[in-house]
Amino acid sequence: MELLDKIVICGGTHGNELTGVYLAKKHGWFLANPEAVAVCRRYIDTDLNRCFALSQLRVESGELRVENLRAKVINTMLGGKGTEAAPDLILDIHNTTANMGVTLILNQSDTELINICAHIAKEFEDVRIYLQPEKRDESPYLGTIAKRDVCIEAGPQPHGTLDAKLFFKVERIVFRFLELAEAWNKGNLPKINGIETFKETRSIDYPRDSEGNIIAMIHPALQGRDFCELKAGMPIFMGLDGKEILWEGETCYPAFINEAAYYEKGIAMSLTERAN
Amino acid sequence: MELLDKIVICGGTHGNELTGVYLAKKHGWFLANPEAVAVCRRYIDTDLNRCFALSQLRVESGELRVENLRAKVINTMLGGKGTEAAPDLILDIHNTTANMGVTLILNQSDTELINICAHIAKEFEDVRIYLQPEKRDESPYLGTIAKRDVCIEAGPQPHGTLDAKLFFKVERIVFRFLELAEAWNKGNLPKINGIETFKETRSIDYPRDSEGNIIAMIHPALQGRDFCELKAGMPIFMGLDGKEILWEGETCYPAFINEAAYYEKGIAMSLTERAN
Repeated sequence: MELLDKIVICGGTHGNELTGVYLAKKHGWFLANPEAVAVCRRYIDTDLNRCFALSQLRVESGELRVENLRAKVINTMLGGKGTEAAPDLILDIHNTTANMGVTLILNQSDTELINICAHIAKEFEDVRIYLQPEKRDESPYLGTIAKRDVCIEAGPQPHGTLDAKLFFKVERIVFRFLELAEAWNKGNLPKINGIETFKETRSIDYPRDSEGNIIAMIHPALQGRDFCELKAGMPIFMGLDGKEILWEGETCYPAFINEAAYYEKGIAMSLTERAN
Repeated sequence: MELLDKIVICGGTHGNELTGVYLAKKHGWFLANPEAVAVCRRYIDTDLNRCFALSQLRVESGELRVENLRAKVINTMLGGKGTEAAPDLILDIHNTTANMGVTLILNQSDTELINICAHIAKEFEDVRIYLQPEKRDESPYLGTIAKRDVCIEAGPQPHGTLDAKLFFKVERIVFRFLELAEAWNKGNLPKINGIETFKETRSIDYPRDSEGNIIAMIHPALQGRDFCELKAGMPIFMGLDGKEILWEGETCYPAFINEAAYYEKGIAMSLTERAN
């Protein structure tokens, strides 16, 4: 693949995900949404990490939301999505309230970058590779400004808090990533075979009433069991009335179970297929 | 003591503490801050649960913050702090990101109410009684509208999420509380001796730099150890640079360790004395 030369490390794309915010402050990395960081909220007007589709970046007028404007500024600062001046790689650090350890999220077609991630997964405990099919031009994620990107999701951590163990683990992973990228640039990185990956297939919402109110919670037997097998007949939700709801769909490996920021997005969990 | 006749149960005093929000919706209990609930934030302009000092409630003009206005409305709806029409008891349901189980917070001088709480602590696992010295007139908490009050703190739960186990546990505790209050009214409630309590003595902040930025996190060895003994020489914080900071103060039992909402209040944890 092309050299990983220009690498940008980001934190604070979501202002209340503090691992990335404080790592960025510590190391002088790129702090993506300082206005949201200042008030410790995910965003001010709209989710910054849903503003980077080329069609959104090209909107010239009539758009006054803080994050849409910020996305255009970031895109210019970092070189321009879809252009030669774009970074070779963005590592964007996030947190989740789900029990996902450190999850490396990237495009399924990027097999060379997957190989770097596989080294991380082999060297560190509780690290997984998560593949998200996407059309890069229209993908709304900040990382897609770059030619390649990895979103580093670290959890479980309540938003607005810092977990010291997770902080230092993510820090070590980022620096190890830079070493591995350098080894790759020099042609010194061995290929790993039989890489375990989790590929996102779809997301499912909480059961809701006709007015959109949530009427069931994640079942206690599923809470915290991200990346474990879920088969038909296993409990998935528990109604506010205490009734159990069983899974009736395909065998899968859920992730982002009970992520706080996804209640408003209509996502109770994302489903993945495991492969290796 | 006087009869516990008029009892008000509240949720949603903080809009992103969902146990109380969804219990209030389920049972038609009082939803204290619907505007904050609608956007799933702790508050809109200022912390509603710091707006109920009599001097604040008496401010007539020049004050336009959502929660100060809401506090005055609530105070009128519920009967008026310091008046005969006030409720006999308010139970106000909260969540914390700290590992505090179900903590019943009340005024240390209310020995009869403490006895009711002691029955709850005896009957349920992981329930503790937390005493907060206060001058009731100038106490800013919503519960102080009533003649007596208990704040029910349930954790650990990331704000903006629902933990089903905690939801049903708090629900059972509230209904059991009403039964015990009824037993008390009839003179049928035995006195419990040797009640274990944790009395708040003071709170301490995170280490910060001259600009107010946090420069250390809760030490991994202390994280999650609410209500455990902390003695001089034990680790308390870990710097962003990895350096350990040891506790040099009095022997105590910390609580609210790493509560998300308290970063902005300058509270890393509250210290308590244990007694029984």
